[in-house]
Order: sequence, then structure tokens, then C-alpha cells
Amino acid sequence: MGSLDADVLKANAASSPANPLDPEEFRRQAHVTVDFLADYYRDVGSYPVRSQVEPGYLRELLPASAPDDPEPLDAILRDVRDLIVPGITHWQSPSFFAYFQCCGSTAGFLGEMLSTGFNVVGFNWVSSPAATELESIVMDWLGSTLALPKPFLFSGGGGGVLQGTTCEAILCTLAAARDRMLGRIGRDGIGKLVVYGSDQTHCGLQKAAQIAGIHPANFRAVKTYKEDHFGLSPEALRRAVDADEAAGLVPLFLCATVGTTPSAAVDPLPGLCAAAAEKGMWVHVDAAYAGSACICPEFRGFIDGVEGADSFSFNAHKWLFTTLDCCCLWVKSPDALVRALSTNPEYLRNRATETKSVVDYKDWQIALSRRFRALKLWMVLRSYGVANLRNFLRGHVRMAKDFEEMVAADGRFEVVVPRYFAMVCFRLLPPDGTGGGEETAANEINQRLLEAANASGKVYMTHAVVGGVYLIRFAIGTTLTEEWHVRAAWKVVVEHAEELLKEL
Amino acid sequence: MGSLDADVLKANAASSPANPLDPEEFRRQAHVTVDFLADYYRDVGSYPVRSQVEPGYLRELLPASAPDDPEPLDAILRDVRDLIVPGITHWQSPSFFAYFQCCGSTAGFLGEMLSTGFNVVGFNWVSSPAATELESIVMDWLGSTLALPKPFLFSGGGGGVLQGTTCEAILCTLAAARDRMLGRIGRDGIGKLVVYGSDQTHCGLQKAAQIAGIHPANFRAVKTYKEDHFGLSPEALRRAVDADEAAGLVPLFLCATVGTTPSAAVDPLPGLCAAAAEKGMWVHVDAAYAGSACICPEFRGFIDGVEGADSFSFNAHKWLFTTLDCCCLWVKSPDALVRALSTNPEYLRNRATETKSVVDYKDWQIALSRRFRALKLWMVLRSYGVANLRNFLRGHVRMAKDFEEMVAADGRFEVVVPRYFAMVCFRLLPPDGTGGGEETAANEINQRLLEAANASGKVYMTHAVVGGVYLIRFAIGTTLTEEWHVRAAWKVVVEHAEELLKEL
Repeated sequence: MGSLDADVLKANAASSPANPLDPEEFRRQAHVTVDFLADYYRDVGSYPVRSQVEPGYLRELLPASAPDDPEPLDAILRDVRDLIVPGITHWQSPSFFAYFQCCGSTAGFLGEMLSTGFNVVGFNWVSSPAATELESIVMDWLGSTLALPKPFLFSGGGGGVLQGTTCEAILCTLAAARDRMLGRIGRDGIGKLVVYGSDQTHCGLQKAAQIAGIHPANFRAVKTYKEDHFGLSPEALRRAVDADEAAGLVPLFLCATVGTTPSAAVDPLPGLCAAAAEKGMWVHVDAAYAGSACICPEFRGFIDGVEGADSFSFNAHKWLFTTLDCCCLWVKSPDALVRALSTNPEYLRNRATETKSVVDYKDWQIALSRRFRALKLWMVLRSYGVANLRNFLRGHVRMAKDFEEMVAADGRFEVVVPRYFAMVCFRLLPPDGTGGGEETAANEINQRLLEAANASGKVYMTHAVVGGVYLIRFAIGTTLTEEWHVRAAWKVVVEHAEELLKEL
Repeated sequence: MGSLDADVLKANAASSPANPLDPEEFRRQAHVTVDFLADYYRDVGSYPVRSQVEPGYLRELLPASAPDDPEPLDAILRDVRDLIVPGITHWQSPSFFAYFQCCGSTAGFLGEMLSTGFNVVGFNWVSSPAATELESIVMDWLGSTLALPKPFLFSGGGGGVLQGTTCEAILCTLAAARDRMLGRIGRDGIGKLVVYGSDQTHCGLQKAAQIAGIHPANFRAVKTYKEDHFGLSPEALRRAVDADEAAGLVPLFLCATVGTTPSAAVDPLPGLCAAAAEKGMWVHVDAAYAGSACICPEFRGFIDGVEGADSFSFNAHKWLFTTLDCCCLWVKSPDALVRALSTNPEYLRNRATETKSVVDYKDWQIALSRRFRALKLWMVLRSYGVANLRNFLRGHVRMAKDFEEMVAADGRFEVVVPRYFAMVCFRLLPPDGTGGGEETAANEINQRLLEAANASGKVYMTHAVVGGVYLIRFAIGTTLTEEWHVRAAWKVVVEHAEELLKEL
């Protein structure tokens, strides 16, 4: 094995096709693909937003095995258009209002293109110095733009790193917190560690706790209430923590959220950080969605109190025009991260690392390998400038405000929770006398309304259940969305609601 | 907070720039960037392979904060060329022979481009059916091409998933194995679980064990020996496992490697899987580097025995022309993965998931969000065809064989370990009478030789220390590398060696 018959080799060499990275062929094919995508953006508004295919649709359309022989680009792109695009739920559609958006931009795309093109693996400084240095610089830029307290910046002894997703950011900080605590109480204490969030916290926290080996019985989703606008009450946290301590457990980690997934609720950071500080807990602030808005002075107040946290993250790919994936994480104590995540194999030893004058980001994240993600964030910041980015966000907020007013003006509907950012949580009120438990009826009606609206292909929204109430989440923030898309979406909602009400 | 002064809004709206995803502006700028990258590939062979910058070089060249106002693309691309490119270690340079390569291709690039362009977040089936379905199909295609045993394929009850990196693949399978075992012995047994690799195993295993909460004292790097070509001996594994059991510990997980990072050594799978099976351990096979070669029948033998493993992974971004990141993982028991990694928040509930007729890949990985990575793998397989992919790989192996012959023909050098794939591990022999411990002298000379060659900018190679021997790793597999680059690299090595020998 491993040796090759010389004749076979020669024969193969003779019939070899062009180098798969031939610059001129690259140029030709990449231009064709650019046009394909530009046309996609031009047309995306006309596609059904949520894909209308049925499970298993693609297996019937594709061959059972990989082709032996090469196929030309135009045949492949034809299949992308005819077979793949119909199976895509169009996150870039201007009528996409589901989940939280994943807002793309030309600058983000170009940054990703360059990153893919250079295709460097920046695990440590020497493996591509610019990848590391640009990331540190851009994270300081962005941290300053967010007015993060200095201890989160490199200049203040902390530092920022790009992760793929918030799930990774939480797992890394949780591992750091866990090992710091186990250093104090001994490794055998792992079964006593408790992780806290609220019943509104993103499920990434539970997932991170599972992966990090936290005992499943020691995960607390503290209940929130309508009177707190579904923010986590510091008092409720204190009670949970006290009960755990009384039971011999060790409070470890709190994930506070600014802009929860179900309803964009905001946990009150100052009170929570104070409560956590009393117990020596690590506080992570997850502002995955709403963090972007905090570059606007009028929204910055939502993260007041972050100075009491240990780490802070938000997803630039959600609402800062940087394509998936790009989660920005800052920590006050990079040392804690590095102690939990570093390994130092001989084959990566190098002089720069030994001088301790460089950052080796492999020790700040789960994986060793890492893409040059800073490029896209840098290009977004430079191409649009902070002033325009703020205005783009304000435009989305304004549209959400308009939508909110349309809902509020129609007595058949209600806005369920206060709107802080660019997501409106609303529902259709059940007609009088639908009988049975009124909430149950309302929930069922709204579920049917949502399904009908989404099945039309004209909009895509998703739902949440908050305080027992099924609500429709209308999240604005897809880059191509304009005011008339929002008005058209409202019309779709109303039409389907009227049909439903007629049936009842 | 959250409400905006109407006048401010109107003023902002009036001065708003074009939509950041305007299709025609996207088209224009993306074409410009394609040409920038095509020129980069044309010229990359002339750049110093390892970046020659000093730590901190970039902070001096960039402003201290993000710009308020937008900057045009040509100014940004000029900075990429003048400030970023000099700080890049050129992984796509034809003279890059360091680490393991990260081999790009036009098809891989275009697939990534489409994925970035669609910018979907395929956490579950409904969020973009094509992203899930194409991934399942392509993983079956690739699994069949590798002749993986049927239990690893969807059709055989297993299945494949794309992870970012091998580190993630190992962490996910380790979490699955851990929770399966804790289900048997009780959650409090976490401190007793033991993870095994060899002293040649990639540090990603140790990192995964750290993150998953395995007690640091329970990580075993079993020693390997020259007479086994640095493969992990099943007997040595058995002894380690028996000792742990005798001490009351619980053997959990073995990571066996096909193509180790230090020297591309191969752990003997049949013996190791048999030893692990006796103890009910989970076996993961990490073929990050060498897995690609196994699509060639003449290399497939290296993974014989994989039928005894629980999971298998390799990095298509290393040597299968798919840009970073793209790690292919197959498991026999998706259920075990899903049990360890799933969460089911209300806001992601949907009909397709409830019918259980679809795969929701969020439960197969660390994060919830995921890019549409299958596109690039699909485009690589279709654009080149399996027959050509095999020939590309054989071309790299042939060049490595040539290099090996050049080393062997020069009495001043030696090939340190057998070459199986496309990496040659060699060293300069110390001249007679250098005095002192001969190995120490040899190691120091080779360290100096490597540093001198890399500092020339003409090649980039890295090192490992295997069995106490400092060796230079010459890894061939960068897409643009041709035979003359390999000959030129050998000339660089010889010239620097001669200079060194003269000095001694």
C-alpha cells in the first residue's frame, strides 16, 4: 500500500485535467457564479419564502452516487437553480421575518470571499499573522463602538475573539468558568456545579452545559413573569442560588440575555451581575440578536451593567451585515479561557509563540483550525462606516415600529410584549365566545394563522410560547426588506386572519 | 430607549445610502473581487511563503477605531494587497509544505460562494430543506466512495454530518460516548471515565476531553515506538486499559488515528477496535489528513478495520479540494449523538420535525446554527469527478515519492519514518564528530536548518519530534504545487544544509 505502479502513474499524469486552482479558469467560473448570485438577489423576493418541498424531495432528484467524471459548471448551476433553490428557505428574501434574521451584505460577502480565497488556517499567530492581528484590531474597534468597558478590550487586559456561533461562545466561557471553579473546589466537585439561565434563555446554554459535563439535574431555567416583561428577576435568581447552596451545590455560571429568542426580552444586567458577584459566579451576557443595536447610543442602555459581567457576545451575522458565521466574544480574562482550552503540541511550537508577544487564537476556542473571519467584519465596518450601520439598524427599528402600529390599530390583534428592537410579538385575539379555555383557543388559532400565512409562501414568520401565550414573532432585519414588504406582510396576515375568523 | 425621534429618523432616511445588498452593486463589487483573487492565485508563487512580518506589525498600520464614514472598495482592496497580504502565510502557495495543507479549488470556492450568498441557517430541516438533504446525500455519496461499511450510511441506520473541524467531530462523539456510558454507570461516574489516544494523537483529543469535563488525570497518551512505526499498539492499549480498570476507573473512548499529525503514522484499526470492544469503549477513527487518500483503492487498506469503530472522520478541507472548513463525520449511532446534543425549544418546533421524517442537524453538532457546507463538497465531487480526484491525490503522492528519492539519494540526509501518503519526514544527519549527544546535536542542526529555509521565504515546512528525533515534515498537497516546486524546494533545503555544514 502507498506505493504506486509507475505505469499507472504515468498514464494518469498524461490524462490529468487542468489544475483545479488554475487562475484563469478560476476567474472565468467565479465571474459566472457572481452573476448567478446577483440574479438570485434580484429575484429572491419572488420566491416562496419558506421552501415548499416535502421531506425527501432531493434524494429522488439526485443520482445515488458521486459522478466518476467531471461535469461542467453550467450543468451544476442549472441544478442549483432547478433542484437546490426550490429547497431553500430564503433567509435573504425581503419577506423573511422568521427566527432572527441572518443579514447579509455585499461587504460581508466579499470579506468571506477573500477569506475563502486566501484559505489560511489561522490557528496561531505564525500560521498567518494578519488573520490574528486583524481579528484583535477589529474586536477592539467593535468593542469601542459598543462602548464596552475597557477591561474587555486588549488595551485593558481583556480581549475579543471571533467564534462561529453563540453556542460556541457560551461553551468556551462555561468551560473557562468551570475549570476556574474546579481549581478552587477540586476536580471531584464537577457534579456539584450549577448553571443558571431563565426559561427564556436560548437553548444554546443548556446544550453547552450538557457538552461541558454539567450534571443535567444542575441546570436551572429560572421562571420569568409577564410583569417583568419576561426578564430574569435578580430576586428569583438569588432564591434559586440560595436553595442550591443550601443543598450543597456550587453556583457556577449565569447566562443573562439581552434580547431573548422568544420575545427579545432583556434581563436586567446590573441586578443580576450584583447577585452573581456575591457568589463568585461567572456571568456571560448573550446579546446574540440585540447586541448589534447597541452600537446606536439610543440602544446602548440595554447593556448598561455589562461592566459587572465576565464575558459578552453578540452575533454580527444576525444583525450587523456580516454573513454567517460570525459571533463576537469579549472576555475580561483571556487567561481563564486559555487555561481551559489550550494544548501545546510540539508540532505547533514556534518562536513567536514562545516570546509570548502574540495571541494564539486556537486557545480561545473549541477547535484548533479557524478561518480568517475578521476580514468580513473589517470590510463591513469600512465599507459602510459606523454611521451608516447605525442608520441601517434604525431603519429596521422604524419598520418594526410601523408594523407594531398597524397591529395596535387593529382591534382584532394585540401586541403581546413590549417591543424594544426590531421584532414585534403579536397575536390574533380569539373571537368572543369561542368557548373552552380562552388561552388554549387563542393559541390554536394563532398556530393555524401562522401555518396558513407561511404556507402561502408570501412571508415567513415563526412563533414562540411565552408565559403560556402562543405568539407570532415578526422579526425585521433582512437586508433587502423595505417598508412596502412590511406592509405587504401585514396584509397577508390580515387576509389569513379574516379567513380564519370567518371559519370560526 | 428603543423609540426614536421622528425627525432624526426622517433625516437619516433621506441620507441613507443604497441598500447594502443591492443586486447590481453586489454584481459590480463581486466581479472586482473575483479579479483580485484570480490575480492573487496567479502571483501567489512569488510571495514569501511564510509571512515575514513581526508581531504587532498591523496595529501600527491601521487606524485606532472603525471609520464613521464608508470607504470605497478599491481603497479597501488596496489595503488588502498592501497591508494584509504581506501578513499572510500563503497556504495556497505552491511552495507551502507545512502542517497539513488546506487545499483549495475553484469548485470548493464556488460552493462556498453560493453557500455564503444564500446565507441560510440550516439548523433544522425546515429552516432550509435543501441544506439538510444535500448534506445527507453527499455524505452517503462520499461514504460509498470511501467504501465505508454500510452501518455508517443513512441507508444502513447510521449517517454522516459536516462539522467544521476534527476537534468538533471528536468533541461531539466524545460527548455521545460519555453520556451513553453515564447512562449505564450513573452521572456521578464522570470522574472515573478515561480517554485514550497515543502520544502521536492530535491534540484535539486532549482538548475535547478537557471541554467535555473528563478529569485531566484520566487522559492517556499511550507511548508509541519506532518499531511500530509510531502506530498505537493494541497490546499497549490493553495494558493501559487494564491498569485503569484495576484502579477502579472506567475506559470510555479511544481515538485511533490514520495519518498522525507528527509523521502520518497509522494506528492498526483491527487490533485496536478488538481491544476496545472487549471493554465496551467507543472508538473514533480520526483520518483527518489521510482519509482523503482512502478514496483511492490502493490506499483504502489503511482504514480496514473501520467496521469495528463507532465513528469515523476526515477533513475534506485538508486534502479533498474543499476549502476550510469541512470535516466529514460518520457515526453508526446517530441516536447517541442526538441524545447528547439535542435541545428542543418551543421556538424551533415545527411539523416536519414532529413527523420524525427528517434529520435536524442541530442535534448532531455543538452549535445550533450551521452553514450550508454541503454545497462545496457537492460541487467538488461533481466538478472534478471521483476519477480525477483520485488522480489529483496520486499526483501529490507521486511528488512525495520523488522527494523521498531525492532525500534518500543524498547520504547527508535520512528519511526518518516510512512514507505512506504524501508527506516525507526527513532530517539532516549530523556530520561525524559534532561531539556531545549525537541526537541532541542532530535535533539542533535540523531546527536551524528548518528556520533558515523558512526564513528564506522560498518554502514553508514545519517540524515534529517523534521518538526523540526532530524531523522536518515535507507535506505535499497544496493544489498549485507542481513537480518543479518540489525540486526547487529540495534545492533550497540542500543549499541551506550545505551552508550549515560549512559552519560546523
